[in-house]
Amino acid sequence: MYSEIRPFEEIRTLLAGLPEPCAQSVAEVRRRDALLTKPPGALGRLEDIVEWLAASQARPEPVIERPLVVVFAANHGVVAKGVSAFPSDVTRQMVDNFKSGGAAINQICNAFGAGLKVFELALERPTRDFTQAPAMEEDEVAATIAYGMEAARGADLLIPGEMGIGNTTAAGAIYAALYGGPAARWTGRGTGVDDAGLARKNDAIDAALALHAEYLRDPLEILRRLGGREIAAIMGAILGARLNRIPVILDGYVACAAAALLHAMRPDAIAHCVAGHVSAEGAHAQVLARLGRKPLLDLGMRLGEGSGAAVSLAIVKAALACHRDMATFESAGVSGKSN
Amino acid sequence: MYSEIRPFEEIRTLLAGLPEPCAQSVAEVRRRDALLTKPPGALGRLEDIVEWLAASQARPEPVIERPLVVVFAANHGVVAKGVSAFPSDVTRQMVDNFKSGGAAINQICNAFGAGLKVFELALERPTRDFTQAPAMEEDEVAATIAYGMEAARGADLLIPGEMGIGNTTAAGAIYAALYGGPAARWTGRGTGVDDAGLARKNDAIDAALALHAEYLRDPLEILRRLGGREIAAIMGAILGARLNRIPVILDGYVACAAAALLHAMRPDAIAHCVAGHVSAEGAHAQVLARLGRKPLLDLGMRLGEGSGAAVSLAIVKAALACHRDMATFESAGVSGKSN
Repeated sequence: MYSEIRPFEEIRTLLAGLPEPCAQSVAEVRRRDALLTKPPGALGRLEDIVEWLAASQARPEPVIERPLVVVFAANHGVVAKGVSAFPSDVTRQMVDNFKSGGAAINQICNAFGAGLKVFELALERPTRDFTQAPAMEEDEVAATIAYGMEAARGADLLIPGEMGIGNTTAAGAIYAALYGGPAARWTGRGTGVDDAGLARKNDAIDAALALHAEYLRDPLEILRRLGGREIAAIMGAILGARLNRIPVILDGYVACAAAALLHAMRPDAIAHCVAGHVSAEGAHAQVLARLGRKPLLDLGMRLGEGSGAAVSLAIVKAALACHRDMATFESAGVSGKSN
Repeated sequence: MYSEIRPFEEIRTLLAGLPEPCAQSVAEVRRRDALLTKPPGALGRLEDIVEWLAASQARPEPVIERPLVVVFAANHGVVAKGVSAFPSDVTRQMVDNFKSGGAAINQICNAFGAGLKVFELALERPTRDFTQAPAMEEDEVAATIAYGMEAARGADLLIPGEMGIGNTTAAGAIYAALYGGPAARWTGRGTGVDDAGLARKNDAIDAALALHAEYLRDPLEILRRLGGREIAAIMGAILGARLNRIPVILDGYVACAAAALLHAMRPDAIAHCVAGHVSAEGAHAQVLARLGRKPLLDLGMRLGEGSGAAVSLAIVKAALACHRDMATFESAGVSGKSN
């Protein structure tokens, strides 16, 4: 399963040497935008989107020809604490559903011409219950990050998604560790736990925060102790995309835990990422505020799988189509402003 | 240009006999939704969208096979008052741009498989300057509404849009008349007027409110005195869609003036309409609140042409694709909730 081993130090080194957004490509986009047959600024955030694509791809004429959703699936030991409304078996069952084309993300990818790849991360071997011990070992985390880094290969826009019964508990623990507890500030009902289930979820996270308290200043240690393999892989996917100049659309509550960890290590490590949507799960809106990201969509979605971000891909494609294919005032013979 | 004459009384009669949303189709949609491989409610507003389509089409399995954007173009006498940053000639030039495929709306329609039709409403003959006289005659308004009613023919989802230099002034006047002035509460910079232009715009509207004050209790009189042909045609398009069980996505500041007039006559006259986006123009957000509509998108767009609503078509299509094509728990062999 793991293609390569990179200890945490290699990841820190990698973070120190990320390619910068391309200011020259942004300037080219702005130059063309001013010529298009519309009042300046009238396309609002669609105009910003094209600048983000250009900056991230380092192309004055950005392209979206091979957008890709990658879904990482993993299982979580903390499910033993009764934190989810569904059993762990559902992770494997949903992977099969992705593969046979029956999930929401399949339909959204089909609708907008995105590719979909599903990666299983040792489903038969859940992470350890983080109320008892660190969820993972360092070499396992580093190898999973490295694995995720390869996932974007061949894409020109990446949407990392996830599936994992129990993973909103892992994400909630990460947010509480990064931004301060108690758990209840950050958590939601995930796939739909009842009040008792939510209380078990919060108790599990608060217990883990106490158990691991002295190690939670380092985001990579937070990931190792409280996270999950899909979150590590998404972190890798975001990093790999940056290294290969591939813009990223962030999905919701769980996927953003990976972005939040990167952001905590180096705020501009996610400069190539936009927030596809704000999830209805837990305190995702507050997470986005911490990340300085305004979501493209606010539709009350809370499904994971990359689904919210994949819907927002349509907006990104529309933005690029307008910029690329609109006529200019000159070519269309349209008069400019009269005052 | 006008296919038929219908005086205002016929329009009032028509409004009294609109077909109702289909509750049985909504019940069928909910029944199927509960079977799909996702936690209940996890697709958020995507689930509501399918219910709206089913209610409006009166189909338990709604379809979007022929979505259509119709753009009505018209000119406005009040432009003589210096209310716009662009000359009236631009209306015709942009119609040509639509026809040759160079405008933003062309690219968005192409991106999402929507048809586009453009209707010119006597561009060579602007409405009268409403600071001096009613903009239109009753028979002209009624005939334009009737013309608009035919525009949706053959579509299964309709997006009415507009182009008309000066028409944010007409829309602002309608909002001020419906909801209370002064003009400055409702207006924005349109295509980008400077401070002096905005002052002229507000002055023109306030002058018109005073001139026509005693006739502004009737929404159809507001339309006749302060509106424009594209707004009348959009009103007709919304009505025609309702009569033919075609759901409507409302666009922004100008298009919603037509919806607001209908809503003032009968609030549930726009039950088959969702708000595609909230525009950055003027007080569109407050207009949507008055109409009881939460927009699907908030992207700072303010272009008109149906562009914001056309971007939101992607969300509507994704919602329907999920509902129609997702596997059920049973068919996919996915376990249900464990608590």
